[in-house]
Amino acid sequence: MSKFWSRTAREAKPYIPGEQPNESQIIKLNTNENPYPPSPNTLEAMKEVVNEGLRKYPTPTVDSLKRVIANREGVNSEQVFVGNGSDEVLAFAFQAFFEANEAIKFPSVTYSFYPVYANLYGIPYQAVTLNDDFTIDVEAMKQSIGGVIFPNPNAPTGLALRLYQVEEILQGNPNNVVIVDEAYVEFGAESAVELVEQYPNLLVTKTLSKSHALAGIRVGYAIGQEDLIEGLERIKNSFNSYTINSVSLAGAETALSDDAYYRETLERVINTRVWFKQSLEELGFEVLDSKANFLFVKPTGVEAEWLYLTLKERGFYIRYFDKPEVRGYVRISIGTDEEMERLLNEISNLLNSDC
Amino acid sequence: MSKFWSRTAREAKPYIPGEQPNESQIIKLNTNENPYPPSPNTLEAMKEVVNEGLRKYPTPTVDSLKRVIANREGVNSEQVFVGNGSDEVLAFAFQAFFEANEAIKFPSVTYSFYPVYANLYGIPYQAVTLNDDFTIDVEAMKQSIGGVIFPNPNAPTGLALRLYQVEEILQGNPNNVVIVDEAYVEFGAESAVELVEQYPNLLVTKTLSKSHALAGIRVGYAIGQEDLIEGLERIKNSFNSYTINSVSLAGAETALSDDAYYRETLERVINTRVWFKQSLEELGFEVLDSKANFLFVKPTGVEAEWLYLTLKERGFYIRYFDKPEVRGYVRISIGTDEEMERLLNEISNLLNSDC
Repeated sequence: MSKFWSRTAREAKPYIPGEQPNESQIIKLNTNENPYPPSPNTLEAMKEVVNEGLRKYPTPTVDSLKRVIANREGVNSEQVFVGNGSDEVLAFAFQAFFEANEAIKFPSVTYSFYPVYANLYGIPYQAVTLNDDFTIDVEAMKQSIGGVIFPNPNAPTGLALRLYQVEEILQGNPNNVVIVDEAYVEFGAESAVELVEQYPNLLVTKTLSKSHALAGIRVGYAIGQEDLIEGLERIKNSFNSYTINSVSLAGAETALSDDAYYRETLERVINTRVWFKQSLEELGFEVLDSKANFLFVKPTGVEAEWLYLTLKERGFYIRYFDKPEVRGYVRISIGTDEEMERLLNEISNLLNSDC
Repeated sequence: MSKFWSRTAREAKPYIPGEQPNESQIIKLNTNENPYPPSPNTLEAMKEVVNEGLRKYPTPTVDSLKRVIANREGVNSEQVFVGNGSDEVLAFAFQAFFEANEAIKFPSVTYSFYPVYANLYGIPYQAVTLNDDFTIDVEAMKQSIGGVIFPNPNAPTGLALRLYQVEEILQGNPNNVVIVDEAYVEFGAESAVELVEQYPNLLVTKTLSKSHALAGIRVGYAIGQEDLIEGLERIKNSFNSYTINSVSLAGAETALSDDAYYRETLERVINTRVWFKQSLEELGFEVLDSKANFLFVKPTGVEAEWLYLTLKERGFYIRYFDKPEVRGYVRISIGTDEEMERLLNEISNLLNSDC
């Protein structure tokens, strides 16, 4: 605490991201990164712009990337906003659409950055308890005072709402913005982008970090009707004119045009998830029906926290959330087949030696 | 205007950056970019990390870059904060150190993003009128209610305060944070970093955009005592865990270790500024004594706005600010000798044809 801190700084409760260890021998399944590399074209496009042109500012309006995204998502460029990772897009959306005195709703178990943003901007919130099966309580997400945000699929459960359920939430909040955070949607859930034309209160956010194996370049975006996008632009242009650097811009444009490659890696991740889930269930673990690139897993016979800590000692990083509702669970990102086989062996050994 | 916009979005008054034209034949002297390329080592370091590692998140704590900056600035790593361009650093500083109900002070003619931030965060401000010679009124910058921010050298005048004057402002605001925005300091002004040990209320910000010819990669930083840096980290970690992408990190680390190269390009820019200033004065123009990589120029015989518009038609982009106090002036970034010779010829021709 410092006498120079503003009230905002004093009252901030910062987010704590998953660990980013430096050692390369670690099997890192804790931050939902894609186990496969970005496409060769993506890397080539980035290398090409690493030249003397970097002395100049990037485009502040990112028109060309917006066109690529619009084309991919079947919307027009004025319905696209781009940010320095979808975390920045979400931060701007909290500022642009939620009010300091109007409580928003999000699920009680969800991306833990939402309460951090709410706290930063002084926005009150109601954490809506999940159903007993960990699905989002659609009925309870209606009639918010200030707006709604949820991930689809949800994190860390991996469970997805169907599109008609998303629509119910939109219809239940006609005067407030509903943000559908689709960071993991490409791994098997239904995107709400097709609802944008119909619902002026819908903002969908996406990221290249997971589906396009580009967490390192920090690009996320939002799709919504023009006036919502304009609201985001007003905040962004009051904060930082140039949020996306020239190299990330080049990478993002190419990645989003290189569909065949990424579709194949998505399928590989999904296939790995399917057999790995089944294998864990064969060990007696409970595993939620994930549509994301991670599994939310309740171990049997050992404590979740013990499993997390013991695997970490042995070079496998997974994620454990020390919160009442999910203390029995660990979240495991989907890696390559080989990584998951090694993890499965390690878990089997631990269970055997523990018995 | 949209019914979905928050009060913040409705009341935002976004910043308008200088134009970033696409055509390569334009001589672009409107956004204070460095005319020389980043060092070969810098580009090499960036290319090296454009590989499959980009599937992973960058380091959220940027420890290695902080060590490089600390070493360069003669401080320790805990006294360093890094952001996505110094604009982001400044936005965080406004949130971390200024209060919604306590007016801050900045010069009436200065970087036009300051009132934009103040407006975004609801911070009242007093624009302190410059002295008649366009220097900052040091006495009037004392005894602020909520804090102080000014660039040194100031923009768009290019005039710099001496270190003892910066110290007077620090001593005149013992209970408030004083931000010294040193975006242009490397082109000939005195840095206040050496005062950080002595003044707990001092935050100095810098950028790689101008001095290191890296506007395209978006890296800026702040130096201050540990508790000020911690205040910035609290805001940043409530906003976006990973503000700096992996490629920019690699470039920034190498650039800040490659002093000999950048010192030479800085000297070239300064030498060009000296002869170009003298040449404009020989045309009868008034030119302020800039310590930055631009000149603030009052044309004689023609209107400033006319000069700006006419040069633009002829492929030379400079900057004109349509504000009462500076309507007689244009700001011209310093390019290569060849670019400045061509601009000088163009201006001479315009003056002759206009007579």
